[in-house]
Amino acid sequence: MRATVIHGPNDVRLEQVPDPTIRRPTDAIVRVVASCVCGSDLWAYRGIQQVKQPHPVGHEFVGIVAETGSAVSTLTEGDFVISPFAVSDGTCVNCRNGVHTSCLHGAAYGFTDEFGDPVGGGQAEYVGVPQADGTLVALPEAPTEEMIPGLLTLSDVMGTGHHAALSARVGPGSTVVVVGDGAVGLCAVIAAKRLGAERIVAMSRRADRQALARAFGATDIVAERGAEGIAAVKDLFDGIGADAVLEAVGTKESMEQSLATLRPGGFVGYVGVPSGGPELPMRQMFGDNLNVAGGVASVRAYIDELLPDVLDGTIEPGRVFDRQLPLAEVAEAYAGMDERRSIKTLLTP
Amino acid sequence: MRATVIHGPNDVRLEQVPDPTIRRPTDAIVRVVASCVCGSDLWAYRGIQQVKQPHPVGHEFVGIVAETGSAVSTLTEGDFVISPFAVSDGTCVNCRNGVHTSCLHGAAYGFTDEFGDPVGGGQAEYVGVPQADGTLVALPEAPTEEMIPGLLTLSDVMGTGHHAALSARVGPGSTVVVVGDGAVGLCAVIAAKRLGAERIVAMSRRADRQALARAFGATDIVAERGAEGIAAVKDLFDGIGADAVLEAVGTKESMEQSLATLRPGGFVGYVGVPSGGPELPMRQMFGDNLNVAGGVASVRAYIDELLPDVLDGTIEPGRVFDRQLPLAEVAEAYAGMDERRSIKTLLTP
Repeated sequence: MRATVIHGPNDVRLEQVPDPTIRRPTDAIVRVVASCVCGSDLWAYRGIQQVKQPHPVGHEFVGIVAETGSAVSTLTEGDFVISPFAVSDGTCVNCRNGVHTSCLHGAAYGFTDEFGDPVGGGQAEYVGVPQADGTLVALPEAPTEEMIPGLLTLSDVMGTGHHAALSARVGPGSTVVVVGDGAVGLCAVIAAKRLGAERIVAMSRRADRQALARAFGATDIVAERGAEGIAAVKDLFDGIGADAVLEAVGTKESMEQSLATLRPGGFVGYVGVPSGGPELPMRQMFGDNLNVAGGVASVRAYIDELLPDVLDGTIEPGRVFDRQLPLAEVAEAYAGMDERRSIKTLLTP
Repeated sequence: MRATVIHGPNDVRLEQVPDPTIRRPTDAIVRVVASCVCGSDLWAYRGIQQVKQPHPVGHEFVGIVAETGSAVSTLTEGDFVISPFAVSDGTCVNCRNGVHTSCLHGAAYGFTDEFGDPVGGGQAEYVGVPQADGTLVALPEAPTEEMIPGLLTLSDVMGTGHHAALSARVGPGSTVVVVGDGAVGLCAVIAAKRLGAERIVAMSRRADRQALARAFGATDIVAERGAEGIAAVKDLFDGIGADAVLEAVGTKESMEQSLATLRPGGFVGYVGVPSGGPELPMRQMFGDNLNVAGGVASVRAYIDELLPDVLDGTIEPGRVFDRQLPLAEVAEAYAGMDERRSIKTLLTP
């Protein structure tokens, strides 16, 4: 089959690799219907994260179950499934605590499983999924083609935006700032709106993303950054700051922005993958009771809650996909996202 | 009157100073019935925090209203009052959000008010209290002498321990670790027990404090520190960690201990005044969804909730006072706490 492999900075290739096989009774093989490129894939693509050796990539996909191991009990060949970006057994103590991303028997697509065996990536024709019962969520019936993009966001970005909002305790009447206008930031706008936020400030400099943020529920747009961005946001909240800031970038600057625009006692819900920068300033946090919650999102825990709203169109996170390419053009998919020509690109085998 | 003034490291003096006066209509004068030395007072006493110029000290006291300004409406001469350690108006947006420590018209005892005018300290015979209506809480009737220590803890340590537990989302069935066996740590044990924690591990090396922690509800004691302490605590929780860690120290080591013994998705409730050390490690926090909440406690917000339990003896935070001295011996009160001969020392004028 064909699968995407990253070799180093700016070097992503579609290659011929062996088909995945059932290696353990808990495995399933999924034929990919749609996958996509994640903002976090770009860290390696840009050389910010080192690629020690070539490995498969892609951790967001939906597809059809092609084969199941003998111990798989909740899935049947032909089921349409959503895969969260992380493998989890659904039964260990961390999964029971709702933190599937810390599963004791977990794995990451493109890397290795708990036994040290390689796990394939989602930007491919097929994926061998460990802990299939715990990981995959089957839909009651096959979706229409129009529903695919929205369902695919439950694999990562919509669940991650929801995690940011939940972590920051967004609820009815909340005032919210969203830092980051990538797919996760835009989904965080959806999540904040869905949870009842009254005011949602989206920080974005690009007209297309500003428009999408407004369509998703943003009430205000702030285009400035740095000290000007902080001042502009604080002005919107009488100099006090917002109840919740959703941090969907992961840099030094974005976290500074987040803490500086939070009201005393508020929560930063952070989901941007940390990429360098200084650590959190305890003294600033202490003095004004600035709280920091979040981390790598346990999207598996959120699919049950979010799926009905995606299926009935109450929320439309699939609109973050502004480009669709065949898997053969995966290199261009990366380049387009890297150069910000695309918010998020969907890939079909 | 006599008031305590800190001049520098190991140099605390009881001095003759002018009596406080009503300077603004919102002021009240309180005759101090009891005050005490706080663990955070020791940072300056030990030279860890610089004393730029001599200033009054003490921020925890209870007393009798001696005089009120013309705009004070909730207090009458003769009322027995508890003063939270921070002045707050109770009406600004931050107070309404429950973060009285970030009051827009707040002040800190021993330093200056919002106008830059000096504010006295609590280790004195009288204190001039700005924003008296917002700050002071009057009891419906005068307490007995035995009740004084418990009531005095509502000025800081009991409310601060409660803030740690609330910030860490302690609730029925929670597993909790308390880092720090000073008065705040011991009150955090009380708070965790009161909120329904099922298991409470107190980290302490001293027999008297271990005994008090057990009396307050600790189910386990861990005397080890550093890597051994982390291993010992994790062993108690199947290697996973506790739901909540209450951090009541504020050093590099105590925060490392806290994060290392927290389960994925858990909350550190931190109330130890940060005293140097590195900042919070984002990447470690991100990977396991380690959340950090807390800060300087808004004890004013908690007095209404905690007071009935103190008055009826449901909780006995007053037991943290293991020594009582006359104000004339304030220097010895500091020395005794500095040398850990006393957990917390109560002072009577």
